[in-house]
Amino acid sequence: VTSDAQAPFTHELAMCDSDQVGARTKIWAYSHVVAGAIVGDDCKIGEHCYIEDGATLGDRVTVKNGALIWRGVHIDDDVFVGPRATFTNDARPRVEVPVPADELLHTHVGRGATLCASVTVLPGVRIGIHAFVGAASLVTRDVADHAIVFGVPARPMGWVCCCGARLGDNLACSCGRRFELSNDGLIEQPSTAELREDDEAPAR
Amino acid sequence: VTSDAQAPFTHELAMCDSDQVGARTKIWAYSHVVAGAIVGDDCKIGEHCYIEDGATLGDRVTVKNGALIWRGVHIDDDVFVGPRATFTNDARPRVEVPVPADELLHTHVGRGATLCASVTVLPGVRIGIHAFVGAASLVTRDVADHAIVFGVPARPMGWVCCCGARLGDNLACSCGRRFELSNDGLIEQPSTAELREDDEAPAR
Amino acid sequence: VTSDAQAPFTHELAMCDSDQVGARTKIWAYSHVVAGAIVGDDCKIGEHCYIEDGATLGDRVTVKNGALIWRGVHIDDDVFVGPRATFTNDARPRVEVPVPADELLHTHVGRGATLCASVTVLPGVRIGIHAFVGAASLVTRDVADHAIVFGVPARPMGWVCCCGARLGDNLACSCGRRFELSNDGLIEQPSTAELREDDEAPAR
Repeated sequence: VTSDAQAPFTHELAMCDSDQVGARTKIWAYSHVVAGAIVGDDCKIGEHCYIEDGATLGDRVTVKNGALIWRGVHIDDDVFVGPRATFTNDARPRVEVPVPADELLHTHVGRGATLCASVTVLPGVRIGIHAFVGAASLVTRDVADHAIVFGVPARPMGWVCCCGARLGDNLACSCGRRFELSNDGLIEQPSTAELREDDEAPAR
Repeated sequence: VTSDAQAPFTHELAMCDSDQVGARTKIWAYSHVVAGAIVGDDCKIGEHCYIEDGATLGDRVTVKNGALIWRGVHIDDDVFVGPRATFTNDARPRVEVPVPADELLHTHVGRGATLCASVTVLPGVRIGIHAFVGAASLVTRDVADHAIVFGVPARPMGWVCCCGARLGDNLACSCGRRFELSNDGLIEQPSTAELREDDEAPAR
Repeated sequence: VTSDAQAPFTHELAMCDSDQVGARTKIWAYSHVVAGAIVGDDCKIGEHCYIEDGATLGDRVTVKNGALIWRGVHIDDDVFVGPRATFTNDARPRVEVPVPADELLHTHVGRGATLCASVTVLPGVRIGIHAFVGAASLVTRDVADHAIVFGVPARPMGWVCCCGARLGDNLACSCGRRFELSNDGLIEQPSTAELREDDEAPAR
């Protein structure tokens, strides 16, 4: 049983045609969530957004005003989709040669990633967990976990922590997190605090 | 006599103030086609679009969500106008020095061309037939027929077929079309198949 | 006493929740001026715009369609905010680490400045009076008074007059205005005409 307080909220000037929108998610004015779109719990969908059937959003995703999320775009939990962020799913659109729906390309955005304002994402890429795509960038290829990229086209420019702070060469953040390089980008290491807790665990 | 099935469709949350919208054209939610705008038959106008009076669209034009098409913009048949594509008509806008309407610049987009997502077009340019403007590009000068351009500002990067495939140095496409270089870009040549048909024509 | 002709106008498909919108200002369809936003007199707010509480606009500001103006953005008189112009106020947005409202960065746009179509502005910058930001640019740092900037990121490319004309090396415009270089960019000099008027003033 879902109480009214748990039900998703749709502004009276928005349209939500999907019955797969999670608890406490809010959809603001002039936005449209199409029937068949899947949106998780506690998401915030700003104004003037469009979320098409065949798109999926995890929990706690923030979608700022004017973002366009098409069929084939899959966004994991805790992602920030900045204002005017524009996805795509057709690599060479032509009116005279429409692409069959099952040939549209799929795009994945990993958990905790940030797409800043006015980002455009070409179809078929994978944006890594906690990656950070700078404003006005064009993403044309995969982005590694925890990578900072920006530009047109976007180029790797460094590494970023879960908390948003840029990482120095030692891959340690002032927030306490430490990272190591892996094949997919950075991977978080257990923190000193956690290691100590583990050491002490038997004593509890 | 136009039956209901032939009449243009305007979503109940869109505004169509123009009486010059063609048969079977669809205008989706939160879009506005201003009185005086001319839109051809079988067009698809997505959500959050704006088409101003003094703009003209041919037949079968696809206008994806959030595109802005101002007075002085002329779009030929079968053009794909990608999401967030933004035209302009004033080269140096100043609030204190408004440009008289008859001095606004005109922009032409040729038949079958593609403008990908988030493209911005400076005023006064001509985009050639079947040209292909890559995502997030800024078009600052004319684009040749069948040219691929991209970047900020957009630069010529090769040639593209009507079907959307990139052309190699021999200017022949796997779809069967062949091209030759002309002053305006590429010009399509009669295909081998068509030449054979012509040869056989007297026998019919 | 404000007569009806002086009252701000809000289109029936727009939302104006602010009671601090000036005389004769017009807010067009599908736009939202949030309660707490301050908008001056004689402004033109196009369609699909969003003006958040904590944003301030001076008098005679033109905001073209689809512009996004967030809390912390302050726009002086006579500014042209082009279509799709997108401001920001959070330098490193993360869903998991929300920035407190009082730590959001502030952005200032000086009197008479122009932001062309599709401009994105990073938070915390100051754009000088009568500056001119070219289309599709990303503003990442302060822009001097009367500077022309463009690109991703935007770079200084010359100087521009109040009237919108580009200035040559002599910093004099065909409209009659003359400028000198100062620490903040260009500063307008009294024109020859004004100097003559001043000379003649005692005779009046």
